[in-house]
Amino acid sequence: MTTPDKINLAEKFGGFSAHWSPKIVAALNGQHVKLVKFRGEFVWHHHENEDELFLVVQGSFRMEFRDRTVELNAGEMIVVPRGVEHRPVADEEVSVMLFEPAATVNTGSNPGEKTVAAPEWI
Amino acid sequence: MTTPDKINLAEKFGGFSAHWSPKIVAALNGQHVKLVKFRGEFVWHHHENEDELFLVVQGSFRMEFRDRTVELNAGEMIVVPRGVEHRPVADEEVSVMLFEPAATVNTGSNPGEKTVAAPEWI
Repeated sequence: MTTPDKINLAEKFGGFSAHWSPKIVAALNGQHVKLVKFRGEFVWHHHENEDELFLVVQGSFRMEFRDRTVELNAGEMIVVPRGVEHRPVADEEVSVMLFEPAATVNTGSNPGEKTVAAPEWI
Repeated sequence: MTTPDKINLAEKFGGFSAHWSPKIVAALNGQHVKLVKFRGEFVWHHHENEDELFLVVQGSFRMEFRDRTVELNAGEMIVVPRGVEHRPVADEEVSVMLFEPAATVNTGSNPGEKTVAAPEWI
């Protein structure tokens, strides 16, 4: 087995610009680490079987839940448990790292135009 | 189910000072997110069944493998696959975030005085 290379987050984020299109940068233990940029409102959804971690790398966004909203800035993260409806919203472009099961589809229970069924590796 | 609170990495890192003693800050999908500070050399070891992700939050360290060494700075990460021998070494104190299965024990195949069998939550 060859030893792994390192992954530079700034370099990876610099390599794409599309919003709401998660890119896979690492896989481990059946999980994926993904990078995503977005601005504006996502769709309300939940994931039936997957907990999702969002870590803000640059910028800020709001994670809306049905009962409240959590403001997240760079260096802050949140775990959204399976089954919990949520909607990420950003006033300005934000760069976020995701940690979630490899099977996770971004729009979960609410597929549509923002669905990315098979994210690409970068 | 109550909606989750956010986790501020700087605040969590500010709450402890012990080296080589990972603290759990989040759990999801059978995985833990842990924070650790260290300086100096760890022990050579591997994990039989767990892949481990190391993300440098502040400072830098070297991940030594048997065939080469990878220098990691803030904003860089590496995935060490199960079975691969490795040894983290830091010249100055470094703050690192870990993603790994909840069952992972820090010293893996080489238990000893640095073993933390049951990391605490912070």
